[in-house]
Amino acid sequence: MKLVRFTAGDGAAQWGVLNGTQVQVTRGMGGEPTGKTLDATGVTLLAPAEPSKIVCVGRNYLDHIRELGNDTGDLPAEPGIFLKGPNTLAEPGGAVQRPDWTQNFHFEGELALVIGQRARNLTPDTALAAVAGYTCALDLTARDLQKTDLQWFRAKAADRFCPLGPWLETDFDPRDVRVQTRVNGQTRQDGRTAQMIFPVVDILVYLTRFVTLEPGDVVLTGTPEGVGPVGPGDTVEVEVSGLGVLVTPII
Amino acid sequence: MKLVRFTAGDGAAQWGVLNGTQVQVTRGMGGEPTGKTLDATGVTLLAPAEPSKIVCVGRNYLDHIRELGNDTGDLPAEPGIFLKGPNTLAEPGGAVQRPDWTQNFHFEGELALVIGQRARNLTPDTALAAVAGYTCALDLTARDLQKTDLQWFRAKAADRFCPLGPWLETDFDPRDVRVQTRVNGQTRQDGRTAQMIFPVVDILVYLTRFVTLEPGDVVLTGTPEGVGPVGPGDTVEVEVSGLGVLVTPII
Repeated sequence: MKLVRFTAGDGAAQWGVLNGTQVQVTRGMGGEPTGKTLDATGVTLLAPAEPSKIVCVGRNYLDHIRELGNDTGDLPAEPGIFLKGPNTLAEPGGAVQRPDWTQNFHFEGELALVIGQRARNLTPDTALAAVAGYTCALDLTARDLQKTDLQWFRAKAADRFCPLGPWLETDFDPRDVRVQTRVNGQTRQDGRTAQMIFPVVDILVYLTRFVTLEPGDVVLTGTPEGVGPVGPGDTVEVEVSGLGVLVTPII
Repeated sequence: MKLVRFTAGDGAAQWGVLNGTQVQVTRGMGGEPTGKTLDATGVTLLAPAEPSKIVCVGRNYLDHIRELGNDTGDLPAEPGIFLKGPNTLAEPGGAVQRPDWTQNFHFEGELALVIGQRARNLTPDTALAAVAGYTCALDLTARDLQKTDLQWFRAKAADRFCPLGPWLETDFDPRDVRVQTRVNGQTRQDGRTAQMIFPVVDILVYLTRFVTLEPGDVVLTGTPEGVGPVGPGDTVEVEVSGLGVLVTPII
């Protein structure tokens, strides 16, 4: 099932189920149908999540760790985590302005998931049941400030640094799917989630040892190799097989 | 005016104005009075904020920078920032458990502020008008994990790592007030906000160059020297002159 968050005529954000060319309006994310149905062409999609926090895995694909020069010979023992705030969300198809304070604005295409129920101390058996659905994320990064920030605040958490969407897929197996990023149609990242050092289950078990995940919280699972700079006029597409394409024009 | 967030009989979180021994219930933080008045002894205070993000200044008092061995000779050119999620909030008087995964659990007493209106690109002239009120914060820190975390996730952002309160003071000048932390009655931190490298106005102008601050967002302004470990049985008190005392038993 494809869950979408959108605005229609009156501008209020709503949730629904995308069914071919129709959107069945629901009460909240994955909630009961209201009985109202809209034409999909008449709605504007929003980022499909209302998070209290966005929790991100910093280093999860060995080839990406190597390309940034962070390979110390051993695999990371812990999935290094950082936070982005809800201010970073941007809607699918929405343009993102390259800030004037970065000279090296990087794309990182990722598989993301959205939490469906409050979760603490998940186990490998219970972890995936806490997930409402999966979607594509673009973890925009001011690479030049990543080294100088005390913590990755400007580098990762500025407004609109996290385009997300286009929808949440509830029926999805995250263990071995393709994650691709294209810039102006050219493939730049092409990995598979089977290459993750910490698969989705491990990430959720690890995170919930330390924090309570709330319904709507977003988890970004890390990026494969191939990251690089983009600028005004470029269009970034993140495609996770089965989850559609997240398109982000850079202006 | 003292704004409080609390629960009374039915358990729902409400906002009000604390007036001597009475709480006048309001519609939301700083909102219109509902006409209902409660006895202050019958309410349980909550952390006085409903943030989308908690934004913290990492290094703002030179003596604290020095005590952690981070003095490089020059004053920091930027107020190094990190994030905590809303999961870190704990209520005034509420106990916090020292997690079993840290051997060096530190107190950091701080002046905090809560945002009252959406703010982006604030100027020195407009910055303070965006603040709803001021309160005390305890920035709990797993000091041993601060060095090993890729970013300060476990070190700073675990559940209940941010006791906040007891109330929001709307009528307050943050420029030169005393910030004290006591452990079991002994003074351990004793600074003044006039010692800040980046005063409140500078912090708000800086932050809103990169992020939109939303109503309810919390800003922690950094800690003076004197931080140290606490454990089960200790009681931490953070007192900012004019803002009451935030009491946190460690269990």
